[in-house]
Amino acid sequence: MRNLTLLTDFYELTMMQAYYHAEMTTGRKQLAAFDMFYRENPCGNGYAVAAGLAQLIEYINNLHFNEEDVAYLRSTGAFGETFLEFLKTFRFTGDIHAVPEGTVVFPGEPLIRVTGTLIEGQLIETAMLNIINHQSLIATKAARVCWAAAGDRVLEFGLRRAQGPDAGLYGARAAMIGGCAATSNVLAGQLFDVPVRGTHAHSWIMSFDTELEAFRYYANLYPQACILLVDTYDTLRSGVPNAIQIFKEMREKGVNLSQYGIRLDSGDLAYLSKMARQMLDEAGFHDAFISASNDLDEYLIAELKAQGAQISVWGVGTHLITSKENPAFGGVYKLAALSAKGQPWEPKIKISEDPVKVTNPGVKKIFRLYDADTGKMKADLITLADETIDDTNDLTIFDPMATWKRMTLKAGTYTVRELLMPVFEKGKCVYPEYTVTEIQKYAWDEQNTLWEEHKRLVRPQTMPVDLSQKLYNLKQSMIMNAR
Amino acid sequence: MRNLTLLTDFYELTMMQAYYHAEMTTGRKQLAAFDMFYRENPCGNGYAVAAGLAQLIEYINNLHFNEEDVAYLRSTGAFGETFLEFLKTFRFTGDIHAVPEGTVVFPGEPLIRVTGTLIEGQLIETAMLNIINHQSLIATKAARVCWAAAGDRVLEFGLRRAQGPDAGLYGARAAMIGGCAATSNVLAGQLFDVPVRGTHAHSWIMSFDTELEAFRYYANLYPQACILLVDTYDTLRSGVPNAIQIFKEMREKGVNLSQYGIRLDSGDLAYLSKMARQMLDEAGFHDAFISASNDLDEYLIAELKAQGAQISVWGVGTHLITSKENPAFGGVYKLAALSAKGQPWEPKIKISEDPVKVTNPGVKKIFRLYDADTGKMKADLITLADETIDDTNDLTIFDPMATWKRMTLKAGTYTVRELLMPVFEKGKCVYPEYTVTEIQKYAWDEQNTLWEEHKRLVRPQTMPVDLSQKLYNLKQSMIMNAR
Repeated sequence: MRNLTLLTDFYELTMMQAYYHAEMTTGRKQLAAFDMFYRENPCGNGYAVAAGLAQLIEYINNLHFNEEDVAYLRSTGAFGETFLEFLKTFRFTGDIHAVPEGTVVFPGEPLIRVTGTLIEGQLIETAMLNIINHQSLIATKAARVCWAAAGDRVLEFGLRRAQGPDAGLYGARAAMIGGCAATSNVLAGQLFDVPVRGTHAHSWIMSFDTELEAFRYYANLYPQACILLVDTYDTLRSGVPNAIQIFKEMREKGVNLSQYGIRLDSGDLAYLSKMARQMLDEAGFHDAFISASNDLDEYLIAELKAQGAQISVWGVGTHLITSKENPAFGGVYKLAALSAKGQPWEPKIKISEDPVKVTNPGVKKIFRLYDADTGKMKADLITLADETIDDTNDLTIFDPMATWKRMTLKAGTYTVRELLMPVFEKGKCVYPEYTVTEIQKYAWDEQNTLWEEHKRLVRPQTMPVDLSQKLYNLKQSMIMNAR
Repeated sequence: MRNLTLLTDFYELTMMQAYYHAEMTTGRKQLAAFDMFYRENPCGNGYAVAAGLAQLIEYINNLHFNEEDVAYLRSTGAFGETFLEFLKTFRFTGDIHAVPEGTVVFPGEPLIRVTGTLIEGQLIETAMLNIINHQSLIATKAARVCWAAAGDRVLEFGLRRAQGPDAGLYGARAAMIGGCAATSNVLAGQLFDVPVRGTHAHSWIMSFDTELEAFRYYANLYPQACILLVDTYDTLRSGVPNAIQIFKEMREKGVNLSQYGIRLDSGDLAYLSKMARQMLDEAGFHDAFISASNDLDEYLIAELKAQGAQISVWGVGTHLITSKENPAFGGVYKLAALSAKGQPWEPKIKISEDPVKVTNPGVKKIFRLYDADTGKMKADLITLADETIDDTNDLTIFDPMATWKRMTLKAGTYTVRELLMPVFEKGKCVYPEYTVTEIQKYAWDEQNTLWEEHKRLVRPQTMPVDLSQKLYNLKQSMIMNAR
C-alpha cells in the first residue's frame, strides 16, 4: 500500500505544528468537528453520487509518518524536533461518519463528518477532499451518461486520457459505481473485480495486408467475444461487408455466435449505425450488436438515441474519465464545532457575503425523508446531532433560504432514514467492506428513489435540503452575533 | 515502485496475444514503429510543453507481469497458457526516442517514437498516453498561467481538487515544469525536490477567539514565513488592520521581516489588493507582499493585472491542476511502419475523411529550425529518419496543407537542431535523469525561443510544422494508392 501521508497541503502541517505548540505551551487542547460537503452538483446534475469512501478508509488506516517523511519535513526547516517526534507516533484516533458509498447526495449536506483532535482533523483535509472529490465527480458523470444511454450498456474507455494513473484507475472504479457495465482498464478489473472489455484497434487492421484477413484472424482467435472495428478504411463499403463475411464464415463453421458485433469509431454514428443495422439484419445477423465510440458524452448519446441510432453499447472515454464539461467536484471541508476537551461542543460558523457560502454550525446529522407509498425521496433534513425525528408525528420542513416555502408531512405518509453511518470510532474502522458491484447496485437503488424529474440532464428539479428549526435558529443567531 | 503493467486497455492484451499467436503459428514476426503525437494545442495555446518522460521511463523499466498479474489474466478466460507463459518473461526490448521533457512542441509532430516488436509497441500505448497526456496538459496550462502572471510567482495549490492522488502529485510536478515557483503539495516536494509553500486556513483563525490572537500566535511561531490570511471575517475592516498590527509588533520586537505579507482569498481581488497595498504602505510595510487565491486562472490573472491589482504571488488551484477549461490532452499513438524482421520498414498510413487526421507514414524525425541571429524558432520540419539537413545550403520548406505557402531559409541565416533523443536502446534506458528544476529551466529556455506572438493566451500565431519533400511525396502517394 502506498504511503500517502504527505499527500497533503503544506499548510495542514504548519497548522498542525501550531496547534501542537499551543497544546504544549498553553494547555489549549481542542477537539474539533469538521464537515466535508459541496455546494453545487457537477455538470448541472440534479444530484451527486458519493464515492471514494473505501480509498479514504485505506488512507486513514495507513496514515503514519515514516522515517523518510520525518526526515523530509525536517529538511524544510519549518518544523521543530518536538513536533517531529510527535509525528513519529501520530495515528488517527478520531471518529468519522459518512454517507455510504453510492449514496445520492445533494449540495450543502455533510457527506463526511470528522470529530477528533483539531490536529488530526486538520491533517486529513487535503487527501480526503482529493479522494472524495475525484470519485464523486466521476461517479456522478457516469450516472449522467448511463441515464442518457437509457438501459444500453456503457463501457468506460478513458484510461489514455485520464489525468494520470490514479485518475484512470479510481476513475474506472467510480464510473462502475455510477453505472457503467465494464471498463477497458485491466488494472481496475484486477483490483476491483469488475468486468473488463475491449477487442482491437486500427493498428491491428493495419498490420495485415487486408481488413478481411485481419478480421478473420481475430475472429478465429476470439470467437466468443468477436467485436470487429469497421472504420479503418471505409465503414459501409469495406468494414461492415467484411465483418458480415466473417460472421458468415463463423456461422458456416458452426461457431455459436453469442457476443459478436461491430464497433463504429468515426463518422456520423446515427447514419452509419442505421445502415450497418440494415446490412447486418439483411444478412441474418439480427443479434449482432453495434457498439460505438468517438468522443461521446451524455448529450451526444441522448441525441443519437433520439435520432434512432441503432447502437446498444456505448464506449465513453475522455468525457467520462475527466468529466470534461466540469472536471472538478467542489467539495470543501469546514470547521463546524470546537470543544476544549471534556467540554460541550461550541458551534462554529464561517460567514460569507454570499449566503450559500455561510456554513452550517455544530455537529450535525442528516435525515432523508421518503414518501411511504412510493418509496420516493421527498427531502433531506439536516439537524443537530442530538435531534431525532419521530415519524409517528407530522413533520413540517422549510427552505432555509426562503422560509415561507413550507411542507408538512403527515404522520404515516413518510418514512425516515439517517444517512451518516459510523466509519471510524476512536481511530478504528468499523465500516464493512463492500465490493464495487455491491456499491453499484446500491447506487442504482438510490437513484431509483428519485423521480425522473430529478435525473434530467438539463435543469433538473431541485431536491429540497432543509435545516431543522433548531439548526436554523442556531445559524441565524450566530450570523446576527457575527455582524 | 508501483507495478503499472496492467494499467492498460484490455484490447492491448487481446491484440498482443493475437500478434503472439500469429508469430507462433505463421512465423509472421513483425517489428513496428509507432508515433505518439497530438493534434491540437490545449486551451487554444500556441504550443505545448512536453512532460512526463521520467514517469514513462519508470513505467517501461518496471514493465513485467508478476504472478498475480498472470493469474488475473488467466481468470478472465481470454488468454491461453502459452501466451501467459510468454508474459511471465516479457520485458520491453525496443527503442524509444523522445523530445526531452520540457521541450516546446506542436501539433502533428512525434513527441515519442517507439520501434520494437509489434507486441511490445502495442502494450505500452495506453500507459504512455495516460502519463504523457496528463503531464503535458498540466505543464502547458502552467505555462499559460505563468505567462499571464508576467514574472510574478505562481504557486500550485490544487491538490484537493485534483483527479485523485497521482493527478495531484504528477500534476504538481508538471506545473513546476511549466513554470510554477512552488507547490502546496508536500509529497511532490518530497519526491521531486521542489519548493513547498503554505501557511494557514480559515479554520486556524476560527479556532481562536479573535483574529488578532490567531495572527499573533502564528506570527510568533513562523516569523520567517509569515503570510496572514485576512478574509476570514472582513478583509479591510478586520483582516488587514490586524495583520498590520501584528507586523508592527514583530518589527518592534526586532524580528527581521523578510518573507511576510497577506493572502486574499475572496472578494474583488483588484479592489481589495489596491486598498490593502495602500494600508500596508502607509504603515511602512512596503515590502510586505500580497498574495491571492480563489478560483484563479490565466484569464483572470491577466485581467486583474491589467486593472492594476497589487498582487505579486498567485495561488492557483482547480483551474491549473485540472486544466479546467480543457481537461484532456488529445495525444494519440499510431502505427507508422512495419517490418518483417530483417526487412526494410514498410510505411503505414491511417487515412481519414478529415485531412488533419491522416497520419504521417514511415519512421521519422524532427528538425527544429532557428533564426541564426535571434535564436528564435522559425519552424519544425518532420522528415523521414534517413534524411539530414545541411545548414550550409539554402532550405525551402512549405506548408503541407497549402503547399503554395513556401519559405526559403538562406544558408547561414538558420541553425538546425534534431529534437528526438534516444531514451531506450534495445530495452535499456540511455536517457539521463534530470531534476525537475533542471527541466523547468530548460522549458523556460525553450519558451524563450518563441516570439511573444506565439505565447499570447488567445489566438496566438501558429508555428509552422512542415514535412520534408520526401515525406510529403510518400504521404501523397500512399493516400492516392488508398483511394
